[in-house]
Amino acid sequence: MADNISYNAPRGMRDFYPEEMAKRNYIFDAWRQAATEFGFQQYDACVVESLDLLKRKAGEEIVDQIYAFKDKSDRDLALRPEMTPTLARMIVNKQGSLSFPVKWFALAQCFRYERMTRGRKREHYQWNLDIIGEESVTAETEVIAAAVRGLELLGLSASEVKIHFSSRQLLGELLVALGIDEKFHQAAFLALDKRGKITDEQIAKLLLDEGVSEAGTEKVFGLLNIKSLDDAEKLLPDETAGLKNIKDFEELSKVYGLEDILEFDISVIRGLSYYTGIVFEGFDAAHGFRAIFGGGRYANLLNSIGGKPQTAVGLGFGDVVIAEILSDLGRFDEINMAAEYAVAYMNDEQKETAVKVAVKLRSKAKTVDLALNAEIPKKFFKRCEKENFKKAIFIGPDDVEKQTVRIKDLATREQQEVKIEDL
Amino acid sequence: MADNISYNAPRGMRDFYPEEMAKRNYIFDAWRQAATEFGFQQYDACVVESLDLLKRKAGEEIVDQIYAFKDKSDRDLALRPEMTPTLARMIVNKQGSLSFPVKWFALAQCFRYERMTRGRKREHYQWNLDIIGEESVTAETEVIAAAVRGLELLGLSASEVKIHFSSRQLLGELLVALGIDEKFHQAAFLALDKRGKITDEQIAKLLLDEGVSEAGTEKVFGLLNIKSLDDAEKLLPDETAGLKNIKDFEELSKVYGLEDILEFDISVIRGLSYYTGIVFEGFDAAHGFRAIFGGGRYANLLNSIGGKPQTAVGLGFGDVVIAEILSDLGRFDEINMAAEYAVAYMNDEQKETAVKVAVKLRSKAKTVDLALNAEIPKKFFKRCEKENFKKAIFIGPDDVEKQTVRIKDLATREQQEVKIEDL
Repeated sequence: MADNISYNAPRGMRDFYPEEMAKRNYIFDAWRQAATEFGFQQYDACVVESLDLLKRKAGEEIVDQIYAFKDKSDRDLALRPEMTPTLARMIVNKQGSLSFPVKWFALAQCFRYERMTRGRKREHYQWNLDIIGEESVTAETEVIAAAVRGLELLGLSASEVKIHFSSRQLLGELLVALGIDEKFHQAAFLALDKRGKITDEQIAKLLLDEGVSEAGTEKVFGLLNIKSLDDAEKLLPDETAGLKNIKDFEELSKVYGLEDILEFDISVIRGLSYYTGIVFEGFDAAHGFRAIFGGGRYANLLNSIGGKPQTAVGLGFGDVVIAEILSDLGRFDEINMAAEYAVAYMNDEQKETAVKVAVKLRSKAKTVDLALNAEIPKKFFKRCEKENFKKAIFIGPDDVEKQTVRIKDLATREQQEVKIEDL
Repeated sequence: MADNISYNAPRGMRDFYPEEMAKRNYIFDAWRQAATEFGFQQYDACVVESLDLLKRKAGEEIVDQIYAFKDKSDRDLALRPEMTPTLARMIVNKQGSLSFPVKWFALAQCFRYERMTRGRKREHYQWNLDIIGEESVTAETEVIAAAVRGLELLGLSASEVKIHFSSRQLLGELLVALGIDEKFHQAAFLALDKRGKITDEQIAKLLLDEGVSEAGTEKVFGLLNIKSLDDAEKLLPDETAGLKNIKDFEELSKVYGLEDILEFDISVIRGLSYYTGIVFEGFDAAHGFRAIFGGGRYANLLNSIGGKPQTAVGLGFGDVVIAEILSDLGRFDEINMAAEYAVAYMNDEQKETAVKVAVKLRSKAKTVDLALNAEIPKKFFKRCEKENFKKAIFIGPDDVEKQTVRIKDLATREQQEVKIEDL
């Protein structure tokens, strides 16, 4: 431990000193409030999950990034990279007794072993919103509207947010219309999702490697020219199920007041393999950060792990990008971590009175920082200013004698004398 | 996944379905409020810690129980078994810039690989309260008073709580007075701490194995006959530092109104090796569960990991025992997880209006459960009763036409008609 670096958190893991923790709480409080306003119920599960479940249900890219280990009974365990497989397991476990649809949310810590580029971390928290057991697009709109409300509570107005959406079902229908066999669709989705991260040549090579013909590969790229649902409709022989579904979604989202926020974008795919229908990504329109949240419809996850088939919609909203945005906007500056009252005393002779004052105020559920040792007034008031307390009580010999305190309002600098028994 | 058991959480890990999560939030909210009232600031750190730090600083018994693993760069990592070594690391890392004393709290998940007896879990959450950099017994009393306040907020009155306390420093002075060399003290502490868990014969053997003479071992056991500080004083040649310290603590605790709660108990040692002074354990006097919380003074932890010497007091308060107690008292029955409003509709023709009503209410920060599909009134009101909503709005064709809603108070069964625009 001589090396100074070892006092840091392990590589990629975060320490939350009080100032950072206050920011995290600021975000978590908004998430919890938005979810609660929308009637979602909170759940959680231990961050340690069975490796088997995660391997089966996560996207391939993620499997390489799982923190896996064995326990002392040689059980294969892992730190979950995402919450959805755990949610699916919990739902299947009580599928017979839960009343569907269920609307659940979680504030889940997730781990990914990624190469450490540009300050990316290996763990983060994710707000998860899921509706299980609802076919209609009300599920998509409720989840998205709740996320938008979360942003609003964090001070990002709806006008600052853009949500790009598409549909894997529609994309599949378009691929079929272009004559691309269904067995290639999953590969096409995952390849297209990599756009921007790798070159188009690399994407084309991925598709060719999967067995898509050169002509087919060109057609896949051609789909990216679709700019609207009307464009898509022209390529389809008739109104397909996927097209109708995404139109319904667009229609209902207007009733939710989301029309200015939503934007059809054929290139939205999402990286996880279990999505089957509408998919979406939320952005901070004004600032150009990475996606704030993403999600979509997953119809087959429950049966794919052995449960009864039930469709679901989920959304994941991480704490890292939003914290960057809020920090940029100076939103964290308004956080005040200080107690309401600071109580201090001149000498040990006043300590008993100071403790009594603190006990009295706390018994009224006031937040009170009690000086642990005698302090001169100058130092005390300097500390009050630095730490941003609202009211200061400094107890000197006179106060003990008179059994009164002088409560100083640190904003107005007004002072009020109150009997201790009347506090 | 054919085997049903695999839908459960991994062995020893907990799932929190919404009902369990509501209990956890009930406890966490009380902890957070009590800590905040007492001016503690929240911090956190990732549950993944460097194995090296934990091995050096944890009690021996704990080291055997650490969940350890290697990451892909062959780094030795672990899931922390307790928060204190992490806290010490974080403090040392900023020892030059923090203003001491600091008062910090955490709601930390901790892992121990224990044999699974009587439903014991392998992970739990612990409320940690620590004051670093304060020599006086104000640190002990503040920490204990905050914990008692936490219990009070959970509905356990001070009269239902007992806190047993002792002092390792005093115990050391007593051992010296009995002629037992300091090199045996740590072994004596850890052996005595096992009382009740293993037989006295086994404890005696532990001491003999460490090199304590047979006569010395008898003397160690003799200490357990000490019933009061007066008893202890009689065995000491003069007023030692440890005796004075524990008397000061007793004195100050009266000012905090804790005198009826505190009880001197020489047998309180605590299992962790880093304690050096006053140690304590809190119990639910009425119900006879295991200790609710425990803690004490640790003067040497920071310098032992290479930091500047600073004394500290800490307290750990787990979520498992207190949940058993609260469950026993029926305290969880009062938790209501339901949204304030339930909104539903008869047919799809009323869906738009229902969504508008929900959007309107939510824009006023009301919590609203919106039915995701059309529902007949009978089913809706049955569901309202089951889920315990406060107010129900069922939208039929008339409401759409009149643009009004009927808000039914589900407790009084009174109904009020309101224009949607006035909501």
